Amino acid sequence: MNADRINKLQKKLRAGGLDAALVSNPTSILYLTGANIYPFERMWMLIVPAEGECILFANKLFVFPDTGLKTVWHTDSDNAPELLVGYLSEYKKLGVDRDVTAKYLVPIIHAYPDTELCVTGAIDELRIVKGEDELAIMRKSSLINDAVIEEAFAYLKPGMTEKELAAYIDAAYLTHGAQGPCFGTIVAFGANAADPHHEADGTVFSGEGGVLIDMGCYYSDYCSDMTRTRFFGDVTDRQRMVYNTVLEATEKAKAVIRPGVRFCDIDAAARDHIAAAGFGQYFTHRLGHCIGLMDHEPEDVGPVNEHPVRSGMVFSIEPGIYIPGEVGVRIEDLVIVTEDGYECLNHVKRELD
Amino acid sequence: MNADRINKLQKKLRAGGLDAALVSNPTSILYLTGANIYPFERMWMLIVPAEGECILFANKLFVFPDTGLKTVWHTDSDNAPELLVGYLSEYKKLGVDRDVTAKYLVPIIHAYPDTELCVTGAIDELRIVKGEDELAIMRKSSLINDAVIEEAFAYLKPGMTEKELAAYIDAAYLTHGAQGPCFGTIVAFGANAADPHHEADGTVFSGEGGVLIDMGCYYSDYCSDMTRTRFFGDVTDRQRMVYNTVLEATEKAKAVIRPGVRFCDIDAAARDHIAAAGFGQYFTHRLGHCIGLMDHEPEDVGPVNEHPVRSGMVFSIEPGIYIPGEVGVRIEDLVIVTEDGYECLNHVKRELD
Repeated sequence: MNADRINKLQKKLRAGGLDAALVSNPTSILYLTGANIYPFERMWMLIVPAEGECILFANKLFVFPDTGLKTVWHTDSDNAPELLVGYLSEYKKLGVDRDVTAKYLVPIIHAYPDTELCVTGAIDELRIVKGEDELAIMRKSSLINDAVIEEAFAYLKPGMTEKELAAYIDAAYLTHGAQGPCFGTIVAFGANAADPHHEADGTVFSGEGGVLIDMGCYYSDYCSDMTRTRFFGDVTDRQRMVYNTVLEATEKAKAVIRPGVRFCDIDAAARDHIAAAGFGQYFTHRLGHCIGLMDHEPEDVGPVNEHPVRSGMVFSIEPGIYIPGEVGVRIEDLVIVTEDGYECLNHVKRELD
Repeated sequence: MNADRINKLQKKLRAGGLDAALVSNPTSILYLTGANIYPFERMWMLIVPAEGECILFANKLFVFPDTGLKTVWHTDSDNAPELLVGYLSEYKKLGVDRDVTAKYLVPIIHAYPDTELCVTGAIDELRIVKGEDELAIMRKSSLINDAVIEEAFAYLKPGMTEKELAAYIDAAYLTHGAQGPCFGTIVAFGANAADPHHEADGTVFSGEGGVLIDMGCYYSDYCSDMTRTRFFGDVTDRQRMVYNTVLEATEKAKAVIRPGVRFCDIDAAARDHIAAAGFGQYFTHRLGHCIGLMDHEPEDVGPVNEHPVRSGMVFSIEPGIYIPGEVGVRIEDLVIVTEDGYECLNHVKRELD
């Protein structure tokens, strides 16, 4: 367990008037306990009381080093929600993380109709600001990502499918010491890039046109995430205008990053630039997302998030322009907020040739 | 949308006295609507009223063919839980699927304190019995799995790591027309196989000892799942006894499968055999799990599930013996329950050489 992080969480719970937090997000449990389990449909829960001893609930199938925490074991033959409910009787104000599912929450509601329930963001508030140990790992994770994308573009040849290139990237992560991709690697040729979440498919690379790669890996459990779009063969004026508008949007956004600036202001710096160029309707998503032990962590760099950024936060800056059936461009870097600005974790060329 | 499945669900809701179901499981939404979206942290929900029109909630970033359903779109700038809550005011008895998270459920509880909430298994009850169209796809998915595991064992050479063999399997699925692995491919050499959920790592194959491979793929959105354990070089008497005990357990379990037999009886047929051989304490998990659009679907073939199996159900039979630090053996096949017994979907040799 990480006693320092648990102490900070307990302090936050007391400050928020909560008697306990019920933590179900496996990544939050990893963050607090050091145990890295993906439980599928089995129960993996942590009760963190505002004062006193935490209780970890684990299925006997899970294999993990001793956490030093009190652990209640169950098997597939046990009624897991009922077991959990039995340990929650004394909490009058219970904060649950946003990921606790109805399978557990509905029995809790039925057992304790008078318990005051809320969704607590206390763990997210801790996780969003990375420590120096975490930042060192995230830098390395992104350096691997930089190296692998260069290899991928060098490997790309006409006749290759999107899936083949994605599989190459996934395998290359392993040879670079990463644990593998941290999300489904996106490779999109030509107009496929106009779908921001296109899945790599059997589309064949003709040797010409746009190639969008959005990729990231786990390294020591921490994620990287980067996108580059490159054009091969002749580039039309329209493609060049779209590309440069996106590139400028990344620069506008980065230029305003420093502690105290709101997430929405960073989003606006990019969004306003794209809108001014006449492409506003084609930038259909938030500018970015926080990242750490998960690729997408709370919070987002979006138009409605008025929270200020703080030193030690890590998030993506990833504006895009998606003109259906025609062209899609996205450029994405990760940045750390520093005391007086930002540090960019990706060093792969962004300029159009 | 699949009007027939939605009609059946609505009939079930009326029979259960529910006014509506809130469906959040992306695979259930795929099953009912035909739209295959993995929403990450974004909202992707379906309200199915007991009578009348369904409402689908989708983020504008999601790209999917028209479902024919009334669709309420939102963007990253909207408050998604609040939007959803606004459409639930008229339901006094609301069934939610087990996967609805606190992010949505707590606002519903706060907005409608008098609404009677329950976790409904109505969609699971539909999904658990496969139609002929689904069975045809699942047969094909398992045939691909059969072919790829044979290739993997042929490809295995001394000096290769578990991760390399797993990456080979994942890539081979694509060349066979599958969509990729449907769970993290498990490759475990030697004593690593004694951890039932061992993740493929850098362990090197010496050319001797046990090799456990647990693998499955998506084909046309349906899963396969199979395990084989093979021994290379000399096999000790103890390994042979463990292996044959597991193999016999699979046969004992299969022998009792027919409509009306309870899941727990099938589990017991295998479990009792392993216990009688003196290895009971080393069989630490349920015998199997249902499978379909997801690798692990409700329900399980376990000691406490007294539901009877029905024709058209598909599940795994996967007994194992795991002696820590020494040896692990698991043998897994998928079976369809037929009118008078079962059909095995895997045809890869099970006998020890």
